[in-house]
Amino acid sequence: MGNIVRAFHSEVPGHNQNSLPQLEDIRSAAKRIQPYIHQTPLLRSSTLASMFGAAEFHAKCENFQKVGAFKARGACNAVFSLNDEEIQHGVLAHSSGNHAQGVAYAARLRKVPAYIVMPKTSSKVKIAATRNYGATITFCEPTLESRTETTANIQKTTGAILIHPFNDSYVIAGQGTIGLELLKERISFDLVVMPLGGGGLISGISTVIKALSPSTRVIGVEPTGAADASLSFRNNKIVPVDSPHSIADGLLTTIGEKTHCIINRFVDDIVTVNDKEIIEAMKLVWQHMKIVIEPSAAVTVAAFLCGAISARGKKIAVVFSGGNADLDKLPWLSKSNVS
Amino acid sequence: MGNIVRAFHSEVPGHNQNSLPQLEDIRSAAKRIQPYIHQTPLLRSSTLASMFGAAEFHAKCENFQKVGAFKARGACNAVFSLNDEEIQHGVLAHSSGNHAQGVAYAARLRKVPAYIVMPKTSSKVKIAATRNYGATITFCEPTLESRTETTANIQKTTGAILIHPFNDSYVIAGQGTIGLELLKERISFDLVVMPLGGGGLISGISTVIKALSPSTRVIGVEPTGAADASLSFRNNKIVPVDSPHSIADGLLTTIGEKTHCIINRFVDDIVTVNDKEIIEAMKLVWQHMKIVIEPSAAVTVAAFLCGAISARGKKIAVVFSGGNADLDKLPWLSKSNVS
Repeated sequence: MGNIVRAFHSEVPGHNQNSLPQLEDIRSAAKRIQPYIHQTPLLRSSTLASMFGAAEFHAKCENFQKVGAFKARGACNAVFSLNDEEIQHGVLAHSSGNHAQGVAYAARLRKVPAYIVMPKTSSKVKIAATRNYGATITFCEPTLESRTETTANIQKTTGAILIHPFNDSYVIAGQGTIGLELLKERISFDLVVMPLGGGGLISGISTVIKALSPSTRVIGVEPTGAADASLSFRNNKIVPVDSPHSIADGLLTTIGEKTHCIINRFVDDIVTVNDKEIIEAMKLVWQHMKIVIEPSAAVTVAAFLCGAISARGKKIAVVFSGGNADLDKLPWLSKSNVS
Repeated sequence: MGNIVRAFHSEVPGHNQNSLPQLEDIRSAAKRIQPYIHQTPLLRSSTLASMFGAAEFHAKCENFQKVGAFKARGACNAVFSLNDEEIQHGVLAHSSGNHAQGVAYAARLRKVPAYIVMPKTSSKVKIAATRNYGATITFCEPTLESRTETTANIQKTTGAILIHPFNDSYVIAGQGTIGLELLKERISFDLVVMPLGGGGLISGISTVIKALSPSTRVIGVEPTGAADASLSFRNNKIVPVDSPHSIADGLLTTIGEKTHCIINRFVDDIVTVNDKEIIEAMKLVWQHMKIVIEPSAAVTVAAFLCGAISARGKKIAVVFSGGNADLDKLPWLSKSNVS
């Protein structure tokens, strides 16, 4: 799909689609997206700290972000770094979830059309939310072929620019602004833990942390049913997983070339958690922190719950990536969700 | 029960159980409880603002408070204003809900026993939480007689001091600290809206607001099935309601003499909402604000949803009083809850 992603954007010096985003690109992203996103709160939980034996337990609440997920950051940075000519025919994304809403949100702000390709199996809640931001939705079969073909067709017909959900330097730089906000808190974190799907979030954040606070460990968490990043990390090459599955529907994608490269350079470890642990962690956070997080965000707490990461005595920040849970289908009330 | 409530506490000048708490008492309370409670965040929602046509919509998140509800404030103020001799035999409360947890929490901090009388019909979640704070729980029948008798017996046997859930000047002053925190935000609120059960919360907050920002309107919201405060307000005398019922289980109590007196002096209006509106509002807040609030807190948003209060063009703060919802029994998933 190389020919349909947007071209190198020459107005941003040193930042193009062929290079990986640097700290300066992430600082530029923070300025660029500042009017359109929330600087989300960092909530501290003494209950979770004592439960896990941590010195401090903080959560960066991207579930409170615009569109209910961190994806608003990357999408805004990508959309607002295009010039008027580049963006004249709108933007295009394929996503069943939060990236779709992020691109639709950014496009509405930029006053250009958004075309979103969604598998017809997407959740009603996410379809409705994407439509609410004014996007034109085209449904495809839930296969890579159908998605690629549908996306290429729309690109050809409309001339819209494709915004990739994670393998895009502007998107990665946008997500990295979370790292800048975390370090602004002036807490010397021992450990920053976040979900890992396509790897855009951890690529951006780890770039910031290893530049500004190199002794802070960065750990990604992915579902055991979609452990491509973990396999790729250990094998030093991208290893896709056949038929990935997990209740953490935001973490099913395979990492990309850019994110693989950054992860191997900056991430300290990748651990996995199963769906039972994810559901238990999700309920624990709702119950004790009184916030709504989606399964993909709960993998962070699940990693402490199941002992995959030790919290003992550490100052910890987790990134709650999103809060777009389906309130009509809570996984702890439905046994069929537990694999 | 006058003889079993605690005596006038002479160390706090001008503040006794026979007088109503003044602004200075609330300022003293804020200093007294500061080490033990959270200064909760005020979250802003542009979605709810645009939904209701408000200029600004803010929520004071007491669902993030210690014990998951504002009750921690009043309980801590009451418990920490007793001297060592007065408190030597512990404290006692009757409550099926958040006040029980608040008193248990404060007693644990003060290292004295807490005796809690709970109706045997109380929710398992709240019983477990109260027990977790180390309280001794005694169950009674869910009648006023049984509660009064059980409470009196424990008081006689133990010598513990009774902390009334709302008709207590120290408790009211503790809840009033929310008002001080709201005004610290330096937003000129047109309207502050909060739930109204026994009236401790609104008595404390309205005392602060009418002293420091008299043009801000203060409105209480109660369930149609427990509209004693509304009736009492309009009739200028306490009018109890027979068999109060509502999904908002924290708002079923009848107001007391102190709270009735303060409400009539400082509150601008009291409106009512039904259970269907409460459940719709509760789900709306979970979905759009990504926070867990209990039905009693949701009455505030319900009042805008059903048009009982007009938000048009106003800067609004609501008080989300608590977040102790039962995650295994969500009311929008159970039709029997809708009255």
